[in-house]
Amino acid sequence: MAVTYPHGFRAGTAACGIKAFTAGASAIPSGQRDDLCVIHSSRQCDTGGVFTTNKVKSASVVIDQLHLQRNRVQALAINSGNANACTGAQGFRDALLMAKLAADRLDLDPDQVLVSSTGVIGRYLPMDAVKAGIAEACANLSDEAGEAAAKAIMTTDTVPKTASLELDLAGAKVRIGGMCKGSGMIHPNMATMLAYITTDAAVEPGLMASLVRSIADRSFNQVSVDGDSSTNDTFLMLANGAAGNAPISAGSVEAAFLEDALVEIARQLARSIARDGEGATKLITVKVGGAASDGDARTAARAVAASSLVKTAVHGGDPNWGRIVCALGYSGAELALDRLHLKVGGLVVFERGTGVDVDLAAVRRAFEQPEIEIVAELGLDGGRAEAWGCDLSEEYVRINADYTT
Amino acid sequence: MAVTYPHGFRAGTAACGIKAFTAGASAIPSGQRDDLCVIHSSRQCDTGGVFTTNKVKSASVVIDQLHLQRNRVQALAINSGNANACTGAQGFRDALLMAKLAADRLDLDPDQVLVSSTGVIGRYLPMDAVKAGIAEACANLSDEAGEAAAKAIMTTDTVPKTASLELDLAGAKVRIGGMCKGSGMIHPNMATMLAYITTDAAVEPGLMASLVRSIADRSFNQVSVDGDSSTNDTFLMLANGAAGNAPISAGSVEAAFLEDALVEIARQLARSIARDGEGATKLITVKVGGAASDGDARTAARAVAASSLVKTAVHGGDPNWGRIVCALGYSGAELALDRLHLKVGGLVVFERGTGVDVDLAAVRRAFEQPEIEIVAELGLDGGRAEAWGCDLSEEYVRINADYTT
Repeated sequence: MAVTYPHGFRAGTAACGIKAFTAGASAIPSGQRDDLCVIHSSRQCDTGGVFTTNKVKSASVVIDQLHLQRNRVQALAINSGNANACTGAQGFRDALLMAKLAADRLDLDPDQVLVSSTGVIGRYLPMDAVKAGIAEACANLSDEAGEAAAKAIMTTDTVPKTASLELDLAGAKVRIGGMCKGSGMIHPNMATMLAYITTDAAVEPGLMASLVRSIADRSFNQVSVDGDSSTNDTFLMLANGAAGNAPISAGSVEAAFLEDALVEIARQLARSIARDGEGATKLITVKVGGAASDGDARTAARAVAASSLVKTAVHGGDPNWGRIVCALGYSGAELALDRLHLKVGGLVVFERGTGVDVDLAAVRRAFEQPEIEIVAELGLDGGRAEAWGCDLSEEYVRINADYTT
Repeated sequence: MAVTYPHGFRAGTAACGIKAFTAGASAIPSGQRDDLCVIHSSRQCDTGGVFTTNKVKSASVVIDQLHLQRNRVQALAINSGNANACTGAQGFRDALLMAKLAADRLDLDPDQVLVSSTGVIGRYLPMDAVKAGIAEACANLSDEAGEAAAKAIMTTDTVPKTASLELDLAGAKVRIGGMCKGSGMIHPNMATMLAYITTDAAVEPGLMASLVRSIADRSFNQVSVDGDSSTNDTFLMLANGAAGNAPISAGSVEAAFLEDALVEIARQLARSIARDGEGATKLITVKVGGAASDGDARTAARAVAASSLVKTAVHGGDPNWGRIVCALGYSGAELALDRLHLKVGGLVVFERGTGVDVDLAAVRRAFEQPEIEIVAELGLDGGRAEAWGCDLSEEYVRINADYTT
């Protein structure tokens, strides 16, 4: 049920052929899948967002940053197939029009609508298609359409990505739902990641904005991304208050529990991105402890999860722990080599500055599992973090995977 | 003739089965190729070196940094097949012994020998094999063996990489030669790069050390590497004075011309690494001008050359300039989007903030050439730089290359 699991959120979708029209088609190809969705909340939401750090931002990102300033968002309009990036002044007009078209249909002001786009860069949005799609999506809004919305935002994704949970909070049942798109590639520097989390928790205005960056740092930013960032990357959190709990204020115990639950959903979504890596067959989870700081731990975990040579070793079932140690080494995180402790699939492979004389067959079996856990203790302080990646296959692997054997 | 092209340098090689013995073999497999070389100079050299920035450094790197302090190097001993990294105290003893074995054979002190290793991480060097190899290599030193030495240091390289040139300088013919190994992979974070440049120029002591970092920054560090660094990366420049020119001092006009020639050789070697990318079919050269600084230009050029999505677009002959603009955008370099000017294969594809209505078939033809030049003017100041990469093939490409078409 995804983003429509929390009360008061509905979704509608449409197949309007945006990718085909972008490429110059004159009619929607038959069998075209949904490429546009609208999410609507029955109440105005407290909303927080983080966006790409790319100096070249898509029109939708710029418009969203503007609309978020008034913090009265009540709907989202999202298309796949065209990124509306590097499209100059026309691109901004189109993004604004997209918000206005949805607002008109939903009886809102344009600045109550956020827009996202993902797909080809440098082509104008086919606005006739977008207009028809928004009309259709707004006409079929339903609280059952969360999964359909998750499908409509896919580009190279092979599966829709959703998560949801319910918790008791401040005297009410509070629901959280989410969806995202993106695939954890080798080096997904421009694979746009879009992620949306909805909740019916009632919160003091500004709480979502105060939490969103820290949640992104512990989830989406830890999917082997190297800090690279597409023109369109967007993560939004919307809280509409429909659960009827006493409004949660920043710094309260309830806010901390809500944050935990939001992080949990964000992590599930982030892991699903890593798992859907292009050509991937295995999920790699990297846990780092004993770091000088949480930031250092994040950096170190990300470096291991992003290392092409770790990925190929995992793919090849090659017990090459040296590549993990070296990724930790170049990550930039402080580490004490003589106290470094490394486990793969629960087996200690490195301690006191050198490899352990471990049963290589057992390490190989660990590397062969569909989910591999790598745990590194850096030997310094209490900083810890997690990151996720996938294995790497094909020719690159043929060259690297058997390197030690 | 490579590193033996300058007068006074000789090389010797040996096939001693280091990789096989590292994996536990009891005899050298038949058909084993050379995996060890020794380079010897008839005179003591002025030597400069730059090494990996990885916090985990191989034993050879640590030993070399120590030996370079006295600046009286006269020989190199290099092995492939085993990196001697993450090998603890035993690794340091082995690296020192490697230097001593060569020194004994060549009548030098151990600190006159630098050692390099490349290959598998976390295994002890098979010192019996290394000892036999050093004896054999020292016994067959020849000024014809530069190419053989370039072959002996290869790991996943498909071709040996060498370069040489001669110039008139300070009243003499001065020769420069070089060799390197490494392949410009997707994300070669632990693909050790070893590079050696020899010259018979006479120089004041310390000149090589004063030039080596700036030369690396304009060559090897610009091969789509993202600043990642293996445990063993090494670049050494040795000048032995055999050309008999008046010694060149730092800051002189002659030093500037010598630097130009050294950069030229280093660039040729760096390009050969990019061209030998695993699975690569095309060389990508990225030239950036109009940057706020040379450093910004280097950063921007490297980001484009390292972008997996640019690489796949080039491989697929897909005229997707949007990916280039976006790589510039996330590189961290300052740019003026409204003055950004972008050419691919000589065709203007982007200016004044948006795409040019260019003949896509012509851009596609440019992308289909074996060497593709991408030129970006960032619209700010006089900073400029160059970087090199290769295209990216296989499954990753099947998903990405046809994205806009």
